[in-house]
Amino acid sequence: MKIIRKISEVKKIQSNKEIALIPTMGAIHSGHLSLIEKAKENGSFNIVSIFVNPIQFANKDEYKNYPSNINSDIEILKKLKVDAIFVPQIKEMYPKGFSTNINIGPIGNVLEGKFRPGHFSGVATIITKLFSIIRPDHAYFGQKDAQQCMVIKKLNNELNLGVKIFITPTIRDNNGIAISSRNKNLNESQLKAAESLFKSLCLGKKLFDKGIKNSKYIKNEMEKLILKSEVAKIDYISIANFNNLEEIDEITPPTLISLAAWFGETRLIDNILLK
Amino acid sequence: MKIIRKISEVKKIQSNKEIALIPTMGAIHSGHLSLIEKAKENGSFNIVSIFVNPIQFANKDEYKNYPSNINSDIEILKKLKVDAIFVPQIKEMYPKGFSTNINIGPIGNVLEGKFRPGHFSGVATIITKLFSIIRPDHAYFGQKDAQQCMVIKKLNNELNLGVKIFITPTIRDNNGIAISSRNKNLNESQLKAAESLFKSLCLGKKLFDKGIKNSKYIKNEMEKLILKSEVAKIDYISIANFNNLEEIDEITPPTLISLAAWFGETRLIDNILLK
Repeated sequence: MKIIRKISEVKKIQSNKEIALIPTMGAIHSGHLSLIEKAKENGSFNIVSIFVNPIQFANKDEYKNYPSNINSDIEILKKLKVDAIFVPQIKEMYPKGFSTNINIGPIGNVLEGKFRPGHFSGVATIITKLFSIIRPDHAYFGQKDAQQCMVIKKLNNELNLGVKIFITPTIRDNNGIAISSRNKNLNESQLKAAESLFKSLCLGKKLFDKGIKNSKYIKNEMEKLILKSEVAKIDYISIANFNNLEEIDEITPPTLISLAAWFGETRLIDNILLK
Repeated sequence: MKIIRKISEVKKIQSNKEIALIPTMGAIHSGHLSLIEKAKENGSFNIVSIFVNPIQFANKDEYKNYPSNINSDIEILKKLKVDAIFVPQIKEMYPKGFSTNINIGPIGNVLEGKFRPGHFSGVATIITKLFSIIRPDHAYFGQKDAQQCMVIKKLNNELNLGVKIFITPTIRDNNGIAISSRNKNLNESQLKAAESLFKSLCLGKKLFDKGIKNSKYIKNEMEKLILKSEVAKIDYISIANFNNLEEIDEITPPTLISLAAWFGETRLIDNILLK
């Protein structure tokens, strides 16, 4: 496995295979592994990037506390026989005086974008940079970050970046909790309480499947379920048009039910798609 | 000469030469010709893009009145043996719902950016698109648009677009007027008055060469020269650090003297570099 730290070294990669990029912020977990497996199925030359992108964190503490274990990540990725990893330093990606910034418009300003101002601008900027540096044919993202997937698809289309985007299903633990690097920060009781997120999404889907289309009613039932635990604090429960992320009063698929909630100092997100 | 109208057709270009892009808004003039000549010297496969980019015009009338003569442009470029031209329609570049937007930071907000809000965001967005679509090895721009050149270099570096940027000297007519598509809109007396722009820049340089470093004094002398004509209306005269475009009280090269002025309904810009 080639370990690349400099942008200038990326150009030296020679492969007659198509190039696949799996962008990560490290703290490699089973969600990432499913992205890598999918890339392997496609027979590509696989590059995993590891870079905790400072400009996508609205909150400095959240950035500082983001889990990081580069040595363990490298060991895991070696065992998986990833072809190369790209692990740039911050000053390599954002040299002194860096000031370019990409905005994606309305879908970047709602939900996560509303609670984390500037988040998707940071995401769009780093993804444009990674796509320009690595020039992948494919790139892989997880459905857990549904809004991020939409932002990246739009960015890729509108700036003509020419990458084929693959979205893979959310990976969950045995209790339904979506796998996330942030889960490491939960204690036992928070972890137990966090099970309510996916349960509430399933409840939302079940109510819709039963014929209930009123968003307000469904959100209310979901909220009641989550707030049974006193540990949980909800940022939002959203029922939105899957194409533009505008909130809808009455469900007409495709619809995204998504939510964000805090368990202590840890903020989790999850979603379910109604087709 | 290949005429390409669709983004999807660009991919079919096969060449073992390096690819050079000369981005234009059409109304091909001798300024553009010097860019093409320079590209030819470098032995590249030369693509001229012709696209009047609506999102870089703050003023709708200015956009509507921008000179356009695509048939004549095509004839000129054929005679020059340009390898290909890229002439997309607006909806090809900005499909319905397009909302991505690139900001370059402080150097895009002063001078032209101040008088034409959103201008450089429009420039940065179209150039990123063109670079992504065409993936040129080289791209050519004219020093007449000095601030634009700086914005594009910064954009290219910060988004890692990987294009070698060539800047060619401003081409002038026999009276020193910088060649611009907009000159066509000037009547005889306006054209005569517009000669004062380059004269005032030369005066600025002459005063500096004599040892005068006080920006205020130099700007004042330049202003007096331009305003000898009652037709002229000045937007700005700037004496700025060539690296960050911040105004300076005392000249320490490299320094950019730049200006913008109206002659009737036509706005012209010009500049001179003190090294």
